[in-house]
Amino acid sequence: VLAAAIYGAGDLRLGDWPEPVPGHGEVLVRLRRGGICGSDLAYYRKGAVGDFALREPLVLGHEVAGEIEAVGDGVAGLAVGQRVAVDPSRPCLGCANCRRGRSNLCSAMRFFGSAAVFPHVAGGFSEVFSCRADQCHVIPDSMDYGVAAMAEPLAVALHGIARAGTLVGQRVLVTGAGPIGMLVLLAARRAGAAFVAMTDLVEQPLALARQLGADAGLDLSRDPDALKPFEADGGYFDVALEATGSPAALAGVFKAVRAGGRVVQLGMMPGGDTPVPVNRLMAREIDFVGAFRFAGEFAVGVDYLARGLIDVRPLISRTLPMTELEPAFQLAGDRRQAIKVHLQF
Amino acid sequence: VLAAAIYGAGDLRLGDWPEPVPGHGEVLVRLRRGGICGSDLAYYRKGAVGDFALREPLVLGHEVAGEIEAVGDGVAGLAVGQRVAVDPSRPCLGCANCRRGRSNLCSAMRFFGSAAVFPHVAGGFSEVFSCRADQCHVIPDSMDYGVAAMAEPLAVALHGIARAGTLVGQRVLVTGAGPIGMLVLLAARRAGAAFVAMTDLVEQPLALARQLGADAGLDLSRDPDALKPFEADGGYFDVALEATGSPAALAGVFKAVRAGGRVVQLGMMPGGDTPVPVNRLMAREIDFVGAFRFAGEFAVGVDYLARGLIDVRPLISRTLPMTELEPAFQLAGDRRQAIKVHLQF
Amino acid sequence: VLAAAIYGAGDLRLGDWPEPVPGHGEVLVRLRRGGICGSDLAYYRKGAVGDFALREPLVLGHEVAGEIEAVGDGVAGLAVGQRVAVDPSRPCLGCANCRRGRSNLCSAMRFFGSAAVFPHVAGGFSEVFSCRADQCHVIPDSMDYGVAAMAEPLAVALHGIARAGTLVGQRVLVTGAGPIGMLVLLAARRAGAAFVAMTDLVEQPLALARQLGADAGLDLSRDPDALKPFEADGGYFDVALEATGSPAALAGVFKAVRAGGRVVQLGMMPGGDTPVPVNRLMAREIDFVGAFRFAGEFAVGVDYLARGLIDVRPLISRTLPMTELEPAFQLAGDRRQAIKVHLQF
Amino acid sequence: VLAAAIYGAGDLRLGDWPEPVPGHGEVLVRLRRGGICGSDLAYYRKGAVGDFALREPLVLGHEVAGEIEAVGDGVAGLAVGQRVAVDPSRPCLGCANCRRGRSNLCSAMRFFGSAAVFPHVAGGFSEVFSCRADQCHVIPDSMDYGVAAMAEPLAVALHGIARAGTLVGQRVLVTGAGPIGMLVLLAARRAGAAFVAMTDLVEQPLALARQLGADAGLDLSRDPDALKPFEADGGYFDVALEATGSPAALAGVFKAVRAGGRVVQLGMMPGGDTPVPVNRLMAREIDFVGAFRFAGEFAVGVDYLARGLIDVRPLISRTLPMTELEPAFQLAGDRRQAIKVHLQF
Repeated sequence: VLAAAIYGAGDLRLGDWPEPVPGHGEVLVRLRRGGICGSDLAYYRKGAVGDFALREPLVLGHEVAGEIEAVGDGVAGLAVGQRVAVDPSRPCLGCANCRRGRSNLCSAMRFFGSAAVFPHVAGGFSEVFSCRADQCHVIPDSMDYGVAAMAEPLAVALHGIARAGTLVGQRVLVTGAGPIGMLVLLAARRAGAAFVAMTDLVEQPLALARQLGADAGLDLSRDPDALKPFEADGGYFDVALEATGSPAALAGVFKAVRAGGRVVQLGMMPGGDTPVPVNRLMAREIDFVGAFRFAGEFAVGVDYLARGLIDVRPLISRTLPMTELEPAFQLAGDRRQAIKVHLQF
Repeated sequence: VLAAAIYGAGDLRLGDWPEPVPGHGEVLVRLRRGGICGSDLAYYRKGAVGDFALREPLVLGHEVAGEIEAVGDGVAGLAVGQRVAVDPSRPCLGCANCRRGRSNLCSAMRFFGSAAVFPHVAGGFSEVFSCRADQCHVIPDSMDYGVAAMAEPLAVALHGIARAGTLVGQRVLVTGAGPIGMLVLLAARRAGAAFVAMTDLVEQPLALARQLGADAGLDLSRDPDALKPFEADGGYFDVALEATGSPAALAGVFKAVRAGGRVVQLGMMPGGDTPVPVNRLMAREIDFVGAFRFAGEFAVGVDYLARGLIDVRPLISRTLPMTELEPAFQLAGDRRQAIKVHLQF
Repeated sequence: VLAAAIYGAGDLRLGDWPEPVPGHGEVLVRLRRGGICGSDLAYYRKGAVGDFALREPLVLGHEVAGEIEAVGDGVAGLAVGQRVAVDPSRPCLGCANCRRGRSNLCSAMRFFGSAAVFPHVAGGFSEVFSCRADQCHVIPDSMDYGVAAMAEPLAVALHGIARAGTLVGQRVLVTGAGPIGMLVLLAARRAGAAFVAMTDLVEQPLALARQLGADAGLDLSRDPDALKPFEADGGYFDVALEATGSPAALAGVFKAVRAGGRVVQLGMMPGGDTPVPVNRLMAREIDFVGAFRFAGEFAVGVDYLARGLIDVRPLISRTLPMTELEPAFQLAGDRRQAIKVHLQF
Repeated sequence: VLAAAIYGAGDLRLGDWPEPVPGHGEVLVRLRRGGICGSDLAYYRKGAVGDFALREPLVLGHEVAGEIEAVGDGVAGLAVGQRVAVDPSRPCLGCANCRRGRSNLCSAMRFFGSAAVFPHVAGGFSEVFSCRADQCHVIPDSMDYGVAAMAEPLAVALHGIARAGTLVGQRVLVTGAGPIGMLVLLAARRAGAAFVAMTDLVEQPLALARQLGADAGLDLSRDPDALKPFEADGGYFDVALEATGSPAALAGVFKAVRAGGRVVQLGMMPGGDTPVPVNRLMAREIDFVGAFRFAGEFAVGVDYLARGLIDVRPLISRTLPMTELEPAFQLAGDRRQAIKVHLQF
């Protein structure tokens, strides 16, 4: 089957891969739509995501939706032809973290399109791919595949806000108006945030954020002091979600969050340690917590999309054919032009 | 009245201060025992605690117990002659944090012996001092004043473990075998920790920690790799309590705590930011939270001491007369010889 | 001043009461709008609310908004002429529950228009009434007094959902489409509920509930089995909020809530104990919790209303002059005609 | 193999059953010690536990420890000859509740010696029995099999206190001094309870409870008003654990628990609904929650026992040979003589 794989930094190829066969409890899915994520871009740019470097060619893609093409034995409740959003995570379900209800931290996780383990786990940018039956979430006819392919990044955002604690009546700061930041905005609003401010260094996505309901969209490249007013009286925000991976953004966050508030780290920082105002964290009892992927939030995301409770369509900037792989990746990396870029065969 | 005050770094004086008068809702307490805390030592050594520098002479002392000497009007339930442990915190009770049940973060807190506000708030190293009635916790006749003066640092430790979440069945790492670390050990054990390891750079307090129930007492000055075995399989500890204020200790903690674990910062770091492995915190969803002073834990501490559920007596290294103020402070600063040093008139 | 007081069951009188004087830390408020609550109706119908029977005439009203008329000494941040929503609760702030952050359970609570203590605490259906400064929440010019008077029942609903835990992605059942049930619907939707079903025995409020966003509005008087489909597979709902005070409704709730789900009791039951399926609660680990009044949720309610995040206007059925006191109470008690009835001088 | 099975009320037989064969991922365990539980007794007395009636002969026993006799394929980390405590629960790991970290509520649970599903799941009162590898917890040589067989009821108690929230500094009421109540006492003490009172209607176990650390052991058959003093000031206890299954005990509990407190239901009530003071639950925001079996607490129990942090030996009243099956069951049902009775081949 045709699939889009990364062979090293800058070396992205559409080529032939072996036909997948569904094992016991597995299904085959024909890809209908796939989104390009920041980690796909990192493999493309640097041949690595954080500490995970490519050791062999890797089929990319983990924001995928498609149609069930074949059903292996031992599968109940799924049938050929069903339209599904595919959860790219395949946790073992038996390790200590899975049993604690935190399967996103599974110690034997197999995640689509990831070099975290070797041999690498192939992703979904493939005409047809296989997955465990429980990774498939059937979507209603009314939901198009583009929307379904947004369930994955939406799940990341929903997990971020879950880690933030209740947002009912809370004042929320989101740093970074990329795809995750945007989805955090939508999720925070849906979850009852009273006030949501977003920051970024690029104006275009901030303009969209304001349209989508941000109470403030602060361009820190134009006004580096735009967060200053929120630092008064010990910090305006109850919760901050850091979605840039920038140490400078994190530093700003700690100044604007109130005593007893909460900072959720979603973005991946540059290598090495990051300076953190630990004494402020201590004396003001700020909770600084990480958010990594998602667990049950995938199902919630599909449900929200199916019921129209969150509208992600304004975030899908462009859908390109898989044959325009490289232009699609370049567009996906241009924050002035695109939030989310989708691919299809 | 005679009181022990700090006039600047290294300038500690026992001298005469105005007789306190109890206001409405206040009582006078005659000091029977007072403990020297790390922040008292910091004023003595550097004339400052963190960002709070002395701007005028300050009566020190916030670990105090004594006898009620006089009762102001509007006070119910207290009488002259009662023996009390005194909570040094006087929160406003009306600000947002007080109303949230987090009075330790009160934005108008008045805390004994602290330069955090100006004019400074006098402490309890005074023959007689005044406090609000609700700061007094009556102790049973069976509890001596030395034990009662330990209620305050015990409350700090209890608040630390409260911030750690349940410790039932948990594996706990405590960095720093100073007075707070020792009390965290006792509190963690009491709260159901299955395994408690302590680290320090000095052998003497570690030896005591082992006697008091630590499952491991690791001297990192002798064996800098003593925590290595605990880093295997992604980290042995469910919870770590950082009670040294050392960036190196904190770095070690993040390596030895499991995914989904929790790090509680109790120690005050040197000025400026501290390097933190933020990507590890993010990808492993480690909660990094501060613990500052205490709220309801003071009452729990007194209750534990009164019922004999925690025995703090092995931690009281020496009790000296107030006239030996300077030797007492020097002894209190010598970790080879002393855990906690007490003063009395 | 003129005020509306209850003298016994069915004996409601508009009459003269002494002019209030603001004490230290208090203000006088001129009533602009007051809502009739179920407990006002209970005093009117039975001369009692639950166990609290009238022992003297009582000025009713605790859903009130008005204008500051005078400011006592010791009040900061409020001025004559300001428009305010008034929190009817005056907790002591110092008792154990207040200090735990649960001032709604204050053991010395003084709540507007309540016979819970003797002498009774006068309510706000009075031309002018006094309250502690911190009970006043300034509202923006854009918010009319009718909306402001809804802050109190909205706070009850917000407290109910706070007791339910996060509602993000949850399936929610609300029994009872009275004013509180309706506000719970709006609050649950705002807080991220994926699906909200409401039940009642009267069609008219259910029709409104469907308009306001309920996914299902089930009239159990027409179809007593309407909840049956939700009992399949061990229960459809993650959370139920019981807002009728009917044992039959509670029985239905326990059948339709999944294992590990949560039931929040908002309604007051008839006297005596209520049958509860305790074995089901035990074996399915259903949390059954009470929700009583509110604490910080009043401020959240005012904020939501000010920002237009919840629209309560469809619930205000009618506003009548205080001189039509008795007709207003009768209308308020007719669920076919009214959700919430307001009064004004 | 020989096994002890129940054929109907009062019809207990030691007889021959087919030799078990370990499937993929399974092991065979030779029984060394088995404890008689209240549900075993219920099958013996009534042929049913709650709603679960016998439909075929059932091998009883779910508190078991033994030696690994054979290892099926696909098993890692276990070897013949290892000594193990056996977790009788075999959750599916894939259903919604398992994924939430609440495998005790697994919708496809297979639990040893239970008629909850048909065909029934055989228990462990069998010379040799099979189980999934992850059900085996290796015990140290220092732990005898009798202690290991207590891991299961200890896990029930630990799950009970987990459902109670933190017990650090809390005042705890335990109703019922049977095996579970006793273990709750030990667990609550271990978890930091400041005060533990127990009630029962039989003096003998209360005497033991006092020896094991209960601060009060109240015999309600001698003094039905023994809990009265604890009802003052709105209730003395922060937490109550109801381990009798008696409506009268539950009624007493609700009177003695403070506003904002928590009631955990462990005992199984007689059929039908139980009267609950719902208005008190509502107006005082008492959390009433169920505790059913356990999940991760089994491992904690084994760890506590291995480290000597809880000593269950005083609770093992007698160990009898399997051939004395009926006398053993009769002894186990006599609360004057026995807490826990063990069986061995």
